[in-house]
Amino acid sequence: MAPLGIIAGLGDLPLAIADNAVASGQGVYVLRVKGFEEPALSKFPGDIIGLGEVGGVLKRLKAAGCKDVVFAGIVNRPNFSDLKLDMKGMALLPKVLSAARQGDDALLRVLVNEFEKQGFNVLGSHEVNGQLLAPAGLIAGNNPSPDDMADIEHAARVVAATGALDIGQGAVVCDGLVLAVEAQEGTDAMLDRCAGLPVTIRGTDTKRRGVLVKRPKPGQELRIDLPTTGVSTVEKVAAAGLAGLAIEAEGALLLNKSAMQEAAERLGVFIYGFPPELGL
Amino acid sequence: MAPLGIIAGLGDLPLAIADNAVASGQGVYVLRVKGFEEPALSKFPGDIIGLGEVGGVLKRLKAAGCKDVVFAGIVNRPNFSDLKLDMKGMALLPKVLSAARQGDDALLRVLVNEFEKQGFNVLGSHEVNGQLLAPAGLIAGNNPSPDDMADIEHAARVVAATGALDIGQGAVVCDGLVLAVEAQEGTDAMLDRCAGLPVTIRGTDTKRRGVLVKRPKPGQELRIDLPTTGVSTVEKVAAAGLAGLAIEAEGALLLNKSAMQEAAERLGVFIYGFPPELGL
Repeated sequence: MAPLGIIAGLGDLPLAIADNAVASGQGVYVLRVKGFEEPALSKFPGDIIGLGEVGGVLKRLKAAGCKDVVFAGIVNRPNFSDLKLDMKGMALLPKVLSAARQGDDALLRVLVNEFEKQGFNVLGSHEVNGQLLAPAGLIAGNNPSPDDMADIEHAARVVAATGALDIGQGAVVCDGLVLAVEAQEGTDAMLDRCAGLPVTIRGTDTKRRGVLVKRPKPGQELRIDLPTTGVSTVEKVAAAGLAGLAIEAEGALLLNKSAMQEAAERLGVFIYGFPPELGL
Repeated sequence: MAPLGIIAGLGDLPLAIADNAVASGQGVYVLRVKGFEEPALSKFPGDIIGLGEVGGVLKRLKAAGCKDVVFAGIVNRPNFSDLKLDMKGMALLPKVLSAARQGDDALLRVLVNEFEKQGFNVLGSHEVNGQLLAPAGLIAGNNPSPDDMADIEHAARVVAATGALDIGQGAVVCDGLVLAVEAQEGTDAMLDRCAGLPVTIRGTDTKRRGVLVKRPKPGQELRIDLPTTGVSTVEKVAAAGLAGLAIEAEGALLLNKSAMQEAAERLGVFIYGFPPELGL
């Protein structure tokens, strides 16, 4: 069986995918992106390669016999003028630069298209490991109250709007007030700043209110960059005094679901999968 | 001449308005909101009063002979269940609570309507002191480059969208990428976090790129809560490596314009007033 090719950035997601592929017997070949090398991935067969070496990536994946390829983990946007480009990278650069001005999603589509043109089958993390995908309904904790449901719906509407502008995939709403919108700082930094807002407009650990909502951008390339949550997300949701975390069912990844459920129950927050049509 | 009534929160704006009203010969009566008492305002005739004492505010303004009233300065949303309410405050509370769920703008409209019903003439800061309003075109520094203009237009579009959802009045865009969107944390905190983003996606003081855009929410109550910028905004724009600050012409306040211009020239950033129809 052809090993799964993983083009990997930082975080637990590429590790979960690699472990799963090894356990299933498929095996893996992991290309870690230079500057974003996740140490836990060094135990797998693979290599480290620069972001600009597109030709090198393709050649190595072919040499390793890969057919299926998945992009997983966090890689920040490079400074394009500092990239060390190989021939293929140079050929692709004009397309990449013009896509980059249209946002992250356009940029990622250029990469996916190029890999497909080269005969690879580009899969999403959720297609490689179905366990990761968030289900619908209550996942942990108590059912959201009517106030929580109103906040979930409003935040879902907000993220649909900011997502349509390719701004980000998350927002925090408390009693109808939008406390924070996620852009390039990421979810963890957004939750940290919510924890620093005046307690008059947010919840506390004795009186929880408000929700974090994560959902994909409308029409986004689901094979790359699906919103990802994990135990640390649950912990930061709790630290910000929120009542819970709501993600779009089948539109977000739960990394280590059972550990997330355990953390949510322990901290007294809910995890809830809302229907994909909410707030659209 | 009836003195100008100022219901004042924190910051330099109420001070600028009070100084102006005294200099013009109108005189002032300043009600400082408890918990948000700007020390520099203690030299003016007035009083300190709680947010829930709506009846008390109206009575004092009448006793001081005020006809024109202006709301100025920063007051965070209170915890409504902690408010000390007088009779008038209690009568207004249901309306306030239901408006609060619809956002800041709806909440402020309830207050304006009540003051008008009581016979006061509620004015915006820009109507009381025309010097504060941002003009159109270049205000300081070098003309924005074509890349800067593209970022200004994209950020103007983003803030129109987030404003329509009553999220906030500001965003930062660099090379087409939305670095940050302002919600309850305020402009200064948003700029501080931009300064902490990877230098690959933002400018630096040797190679400035990206812009902060501030504009009112579409259709917002302009007499309260017009976006306000000052010298510290210019300094934080520079510290975040941005090329400049763009505000909607006639839709934002410049506090101490000449000091802002001086800071912008010194730090090498522009201040630019874009046309109100941009990005709509």
